[in-house]
Amino acid sequence: MTGTNEKVLKKLEETVGKDWVVTEREFMENYLQDETPESVRPSAANDLILVKPSSTEEVSQILKLANQEKIPVFPVGGRTGLVGASVPTEPGIILSLERMKKIEIDRQNLMAIVEAGATLGELIEASEAAGLFFPLHPGDEGAQIGGLIATNAGGVRAVKYGVVRNYVKGIEAVLPTGEVLNLGGRLIKNNAGYDLMHLIIGSEGTLCVVTKAVIKLYARSKFSATLIVPFQRRFDAIKSVQAILQSGVVPLAIEYVELKEINQAAEHLNEEWPVQEGKAQLMLILTAISEDELLSACEKISEVCEKNGAGETVIAETKEEQDKILRVRSNIYTTLKPQMIDILDVTVPPSRLGDLMNAVDEIARKHETHLPVYGHAGDGNLHIHIMKEEDKPPDYASKVKREIYDAGIRLGGVITGEHGIGKIRVDEFALTIGEKELSLMKGIKKLFDPNNILNPGKVIPSG
Amino acid sequence: MTGTNEKVLKKLEETVGKDWVVTEREFMENYLQDETPESVRPSAANDLILVKPSSTEEVSQILKLANQEKIPVFPVGGRTGLVGASVPTEPGIILSLERMKKIEIDRQNLMAIVEAGATLGELIEASEAAGLFFPLHPGDEGAQIGGLIATNAGGVRAVKYGVVRNYVKGIEAVLPTGEVLNLGGRLIKNNAGYDLMHLIIGSEGTLCVVTKAVIKLYARSKFSATLIVPFQRRFDAIKSVQAILQSGVVPLAIEYVELKEINQAAEHLNEEWPVQEGKAQLMLILTAISEDELLSACEKISEVCEKNGAGETVIAETKEEQDKILRVRSNIYTTLKPQMIDILDVTVPPSRLGDLMNAVDEIARKHETHLPVYGHAGDGNLHIHIMKEEDKPPDYASKVKREIYDAGIRLGGVITGEHGIGKIRVDEFALTIGEKELSLMKGIKKLFDPNNILNPGKVIPSG
Repeated sequence: MTGTNEKVLKKLEETVGKDWVVTEREFMENYLQDETPESVRPSAANDLILVKPSSTEEVSQILKLANQEKIPVFPVGGRTGLVGASVPTEPGIILSLERMKKIEIDRQNLMAIVEAGATLGELIEASEAAGLFFPLHPGDEGAQIGGLIATNAGGVRAVKYGVVRNYVKGIEAVLPTGEVLNLGGRLIKNNAGYDLMHLIIGSEGTLCVVTKAVIKLYARSKFSATLIVPFQRRFDAIKSVQAILQSGVVPLAIEYVELKEINQAAEHLNEEWPVQEGKAQLMLILTAISEDELLSACEKISEVCEKNGAGETVIAETKEEQDKILRVRSNIYTTLKPQMIDILDVTVPPSRLGDLMNAVDEIARKHETHLPVYGHAGDGNLHIHIMKEEDKPPDYASKVKREIYDAGIRLGGVITGEHGIGKIRVDEFALTIGEKELSLMKGIKKLFDPNNILNPGKVIPSG
Repeated sequence: MTGTNEKVLKKLEETVGKDWVVTEREFMENYLQDETPESVRPSAANDLILVKPSSTEEVSQILKLANQEKIPVFPVGGRTGLVGASVPTEPGIILSLERMKKIEIDRQNLMAIVEAGATLGELIEASEAAGLFFPLHPGDEGAQIGGLIATNAGGVRAVKYGVVRNYVKGIEAVLPTGEVLNLGGRLIKNNAGYDLMHLIIGSEGTLCVVTKAVIKLYARSKFSATLIVPFQRRFDAIKSVQAILQSGVVPLAIEYVELKEINQAAEHLNEEWPVQEGKAQLMLILTAISEDELLSACEKISEVCEKNGAGETVIAETKEEQDKILRVRSNIYTTLKPQMIDILDVTVPPSRLGDLMNAVDEIARKHETHLPVYGHAGDGNLHIHIMKEEDKPPDYASKVKREIYDAGIRLGGVITGEHGIGKIRVDEFALTIGEKELSLMKGIKKLFDPNNILNPGKVIPSG
């Protein structure tokens, strides 16, 4: 875009104000990467302009300009993604909505009206201040709402109320033409025409830029507990997950962890993991509106798990202890990251999770490596880590990854349940879905973004 | 299609067998209408062929043929819709999937794999036989699964777990080209590319024909109760709905009924409605996994409602009494139908439901009529009935309807939260949404169905 640089720069400065247009590389370093492991993270291009609009109107003007000049636009959120989705890989505009962060809590309708640049942490805080609760917790609280919607984020606490898609009731979004879409609203039911909102959720910023959303909240549960249930055998842990859900108890979270990795994560934080028995463990979070309800759910879980070979359930009821456990759990990725090539998020039918883990072990044996796993057991969503290994051939990681993908698909799964396609799964994605599905997706991309300016090279293979 | 009749007929008979192709009008009468009130129901065209395939492969061949010959295809489900969606309004093929009704219950994953022609009643029964539960109850149990998905059905029991969209985890669908899409699966999380499945849900059979679906089920709650709470003032009832949800209790259903209409419905069934106090009433259904949980929820609801001016709560705990109450509630529409011109399903933010009812009263006063209302109060979804009136000008009903729509939209709502656009709301829908939204919907229609053979004249205005 060097040619049009001066003219475009001037227009951008006129639109958002000189202070909010950054061209010096040193002041945009943070915007050139996300949390993707370095080994697989794409590199940022040169010749980038970082723009920080303060309103939907400004976003509209920026996109209109970029569309006229055919300049790529890379919308970024909190840059907490794991598939390089927000890395600006071509010369163009980095669009950060960080200044658009207003949160209005509508207590009467149990909803939040949130600008896209507000963070997950800020939404949680604002909800709690109003006596309400946003149950979902997709990892890093620095994630922004726009990013959560663009990636249909999931994470730890998605068993009871579902992933981000289930929370989004309305969105405002800007198309490449600058036109503003208003879809849904403070509405629980809406069947007026094709649901463009649900098409946009999870589209990773390739169809339009989400500027605002209506998010469903829940009443704050007065009672909660975190349970850790130890098992000697992985298979018993997985079998227990199904048995718990069949019993009628629906926890907020059902996580599977292995003792080795969770201890490493605890050590990394200078903490101690409370249960040292059992190398395979389930971690569950329960919420309830009465103490009776909480206790009877805890009892039911212990009972069901014991029938499936579990050791003694440990129950944490204080907020401090519960927060610590979630903190350690959320830290596994950070602990492993320096030694990691890639993190996968293959998702299979929940009942096949044990089979997927066995297949992963088999692949590890074949390649003479260790592939640490943990995951959202209630959702059939497994995180598998391909670790750095000396003396392995250069294509070792991509072979392992491909074999894991094949195993997941063979078990009725998909290559990504959480992280999305981003920039580093585009080719594999194309190989694993039907030709017609892909051609419909390409058609939709073209309909929304005919000049292919929004996140080029993402989700949909170009050409 | 008279010209191509013979050739097409022969091919259809070759595809599904002679017994499953009907051309005599007298044997297809049931397929020419749905539950839409007669006054507004569109008329079926002449020159129709009713075809009943037995497999996805047969559906594929039928659609391919129709697409080649550019013959309109009208997929029908249980014909329980209220907006004329399944009425075949042009010469063409009526496609009934009633023979495709296999149901497989996957107990381990708490899911059902259901062919599109199975009925809601059959799904409920099969789930219960396996010790599981399909919570949703969108009225008529003769509705078919394909229709439930095509209309994203809601109904009475949608407060706790949401509408059909929240239950659908995978679909198999056939495009006009005959190509078969396989989207999602027995999966709780799936972020692999644009979510075509969620685009198809609620598209009223205009994009493709859904042939099979994976439906999430729940463990059967051992304890349930139905509560009726009487209020003297409508506004107090609506205020209580918000207060209940804010208290943390999440009932399966929160219905608003008025004494006059519910008594008529009871009388029609030769039953008695158990609560005669209070002209505005809430009917709530609660489920729980323990008796303690159930009782504490019942107490909380009575307490909250009493604070908001309610009379004494009546609690039904036996299955017989609960079934009776739901039966009477579900019968209001049937009771009113003979005297009805149209039934609307305007949906507003739940907190604005009282304002919508007041606006409806105002419109009724202006037009010197009575507009009975009842609705899904927890969802902000109101059913408003325009009744037959002698001596009214011919445009009376359409004026009243338009004023109600305007009121709903002014309050942040949409013209339909449940019934969809169908064939009788197409023009009004186009007037009430943005031009760009409509043009994107038209683009999507063209992408999926370039020859416009699927349900022409539905959802999207042609031309």
